Amino acid sequence: MTHERTPRQIKFGAILTGTGGPGDQLRWLDPEIPGDASVDIDWYIEYARLAEEAKFDLVFIVDSQFITPHSPPHYLNRLEPLTLLSALAVSTSRIGLVGTATTSYNSPYNLARRFASLDLISRGRAGWNVVTSGDAGTAGNYSRDEHFDYPTRYRRAAEHIEVSQGLWDSYEDDAFPRDRETKVFLDPAKLHELNHDGEFFQVVGPLNIQRSPQGQPVIFQAGDSNDGRDLGGRYADGIFTFTPSIADGQAFAADIRSRAAAVGRNPDHVLILPGARIVVGDTDDDAREIERAQHELSNSFEITLAELGRPFGWHDFSGYDLDAPFPDVLHLAEHSFRTQAEAIVAAARKDDLTLRQVVERRAALHPSPFVGSAKTVADTIQEWFEAGAFDGLNVFVSHPAQFRRFVAEVIPILQERGLHRSEYEGTTLREHLGLPFPANRYTVSATRVEQTANAASLSTAH
Amino acid sequence: MTHERTPRQIKFGAILTGTGGPGDQLRWLDPEIPGDASVDIDWYIEYARLAEEAKFDLVFIVDSQFITPHSPPHYLNRLEPLTLLSALAVSTSRIGLVGTATTSYNSPYNLARRFASLDLISRGRAGWNVVTSGDAGTAGNYSRDEHFDYPTRYRRAAEHIEVSQGLWDSYEDDAFPRDRETKVFLDPAKLHELNHDGEFFQVVGPLNIQRSPQGQPVIFQAGDSNDGRDLGGRYADGIFTFTPSIADGQAFAADIRSRAAAVGRNPDHVLILPGARIVVGDTDDDAREIERAQHELSNSFEITLAELGRPFGWHDFSGYDLDAPFPDVLHLAEHSFRTQAEAIVAAARKDDLTLRQVVERRAALHPSPFVGSAKTVADTIQEWFEAGAFDGLNVFVSHPAQFRRFVAEVIPILQERGLHRSEYEGTTLREHLGLPFPANRYTVSATRVEQTANAASLSTAH
Ligand SMILES: Cc1cc2nc3c(=O)[nH]c(=O)nc-3n(C[C@H](O)[C@H](O)[C@H](O)COP(=O)(O)O)c2cc1C
Ligand SMILES: Cc1cc2nc3c(=O)[nH]c(=O)nc-3n(C[C@H](O)[C@H](O)[C@H](O)COP(=O)(O)O)c2cc1C
Repeated sequence: MTHERTPRQIKFGAILTGTGGPGDQLRWLDPEIPGDASVDIDWYIEYARLAEEAKFDLVFIVDSQFITPHSPPHYLNRLEPLTLLSALAVSTSRIGLVGTATTSYNSPYNLARRFASLDLISRGRAGWNVVTSGDAGTAGNYSRDEHFDYPTRYRRAAEHIEVSQGLWDSYEDDAFPRDRETKVFLDPAKLHELNHDGEFFQVVGPLNIQRSPQGQPVIFQAGDSNDGRDLGGRYADGIFTFTPSIADGQAFAADIRSRAAAVGRNPDHVLILPGARIVVGDTDDDAREIERAQHELSNSFEITLAELGRPFGWHDFSGYDLDAPFPDVLHLAEHSFRTQAEAIVAAARKDDLTLRQVVERRAALHPSPFVGSAKTVADTIQEWFEAGAFDGLNVFVSHPAQFRRFVAEVIPILQERGLHRSEYEGTTLREHLGLPFPANRYTVSATRVEQTANAASLSTAH
Repeated sequence: MTHERTPRQIKFGAILTGTGGPGDQLRWLDPEIPGDASVDIDWYIEYARLAEEAKFDLVFIVDSQFITPHSPPHYLNRLEPLTLLSALAVSTSRIGLVGTATTSYNSPYNLARRFASLDLISRGRAGWNVVTSGDAGTAGNYSRDEHFDYPTRYRRAAEHIEVSQGLWDSYEDDAFPRDRETKVFLDPAKLHELNHDGEFFQVVGPLNIQRSPQGQPVIFQAGDSNDGRDLGGRYADGIFTFTPSIADGQAFAADIRSRAAAVGRNPDHVLILPGARIVVGDTDDDAREIERAQHELSNSFEITLAELGRPFGWHDFSGYDLDAPFPDVLHLAEHSFRTQAEAIVAAARKDDLTLRQVVERRAALHPSPFVGSAKTVADTIQEWFEAGAFDGLNVFVSHPAQFRRFVAEVIPILQERGLHRSEYEGTTLREHLGLPFPANRYTVSATRVEQTANAASLSTAH
């Protein structure tokens, strides 16, 4: 196979949530958004198809398994990612389908199987966003008193991925001759037990499903702590994160790539896709005004106060003196979103903030860098991309009208500049992302046999 | 709401497996069946749509999570039922979607959530076929040395269903005002924690998804032991079983209905749908000849010998003396398909059979009662139905050409006789099956208030 090498292009994901997310809880007030969008499969199909028309690499589904009455609308009431993506698989034909699933509260056989099934249903377009769950309360839905602590969560995540990837290789690619003359359906020598016996899981295998056209589902990772970055560097093909500035993006990319290189991986095979809020206006001023109006609609001191509790295990801050110094609550984040909680506390301590000030700062408009006329937005994306701040963007589809403008106005500019594809070249998510096909670990390929022969002749020469 | 009561009609399910199942392992030799049908979503979509055109009540997906090289083709390589059904949900509009899932190796929060998600994606057409897993080896894929014993399996199943049904009521039907004027998305008083604390599961809840148009997914049950029948009588809306004769069917129905009545349920709300192999020919003789040819193609002593091991924990019978009496192996079935194993051993002991004879009997053609000209098949189905042997049939779609004949030739006769619908009257699976809408347990309905008032006035009268 010879490939003409495509120039490096920006990857695009579309984060579909239906109704607004954290920090954007009142988004459903927008009359353009159906109140039940987060559970309306037609809403997801419509925007997945729009993203596919714009030749996006993937749609991205976030997830959680714990709610309180204070949770944002699309947390309160959401479709389970894999059933959702499976419905999208047969409603689209090319776009990648990435779903979030936690390693803390799934068994590897079941989860690996569901992703493999999605991968076959979509004919090679599945991806798994590996998370460890940040809400400590999730434990209560799974017969546990307490959420796993950080080291345990991330050791479990690593083992979960290893088991999944092992199970995904249960069948070699040519395991099924299905030869009607010899009546041979399966070549049993190409069916493999895993016999995994680890710290968290014992899994004999094999998995009862063949590999897809992309070999194995693509792995994404989300979680920014040191342990989380290690996991991403070691296993992930793509990282979901947030990147507030070019410098932050460069530092994050360098860090992740060095972790990948340290474990012997090709660092170019880890793509970084931060989430992005994009606002397109007729002019830059018009766009800033739209952003301001969006923020005004969605902003509420009370909701921000309630949401502030989340990284601290949904701690209730409503009883505190708003004008006293930010309280000493970091220990509450031990099993929760500790990285986020540490950042909040550090900022509060640094500037001696009161609780009210912390909430006000969070509730204030944090302008997105990707706001402006279509040309400005395209320029900014190009600048950040070329500076190495990211490999692509995971675009929040929280304002349908805005997403349509991005697709209609910004995407064509990027296509014109050769920074985004005008047609899909491949059929699988791996191909879209420029990732290599993962050879089955049990298959002795021609190349491998050759390498072995070379190694043998080398050792003879010595 | 007033309903005109439809005369009692036969329910129809279509069991979609792609390639042939147990006792029918060589079915894939049929050139009409794609060798990869069991993982080809287009195959499933095609036959689900055909079943929907014929106004079937539901499609039915069986399942397992353990294979050996001797497993039948569609066990070796199959799509996971809920991802599969979700793809069917958006490829059909009316037909019910019933998926098999085991209570032994799932956690209730995850499984209840996936069925609820399918139920919303399909707008009220989901059903769960509850099984406890018969293959003892399944345990090895879930970090367990041994499969649960019978009493444990069925106690766990009962608790799993109770938790699921509890979680499915997390939101009352009117929990989301989504009122843009008052900015009220959720009425928190209509969101309920379950706080389940049982023998196998502790689940706080609530589930993060609203109820569907049918309130809750429909419950099917499969498993014929005494414990299995108890579970079905107590919880199931539908039972999947096998019914070799009218008398057997009547006895089974009477048994299940008395178990339902014993726990205070309306016995008419448990529908019995045995699996059925249907063969339609130009004449009765032609059909018998088709059945014989099908059997000849699919029949093999070696495969039957290997499959015989399954109820005994995939015991390997190949080393035994074929002409010695059937060996003493019942203890091997303790954690496996014990009910099946007991029937095999009892028959062997009764007639003093050798291993070879047991295999030969199993490999012999067991004529289906539903074989003949279209009129004969329609007559037989009507006769069994009117005799109370079943409420409907779960038709194996293992011969595509045969399924098309059934739909084209037999269904119209039954429609003509008023025994099968010509149009769907409702939109949900519950409506197709004539099952009542399950009121949310937390909702104080007008009727319930009235009943309480009556009860109060009665107790005053005393
Ligand atoms: C950009 C980003 C997106 C995330 N998305 C999810 C998600 O959809 N579901 C989830 O359970 N956790 C999500 N997480 C949380 C991680 O799983 C993790 O539990 C949490 O971030 C705490 O770990 P950390 O300190 O390593 O970040 C996300 C984290 C980040 C940084
Ligand atoms: C008609 C029928 C269909 C069944 N289908 C399945 C199935 O698809 N998947 C599964 O794991 N078990 C299935 N079972 C097995 C049951 O879950 C159960 O484990 C097994 O039958 C042993 O229990 P029992 O002795 O109560 O029948 C089925 C059983 C019957 C009788």
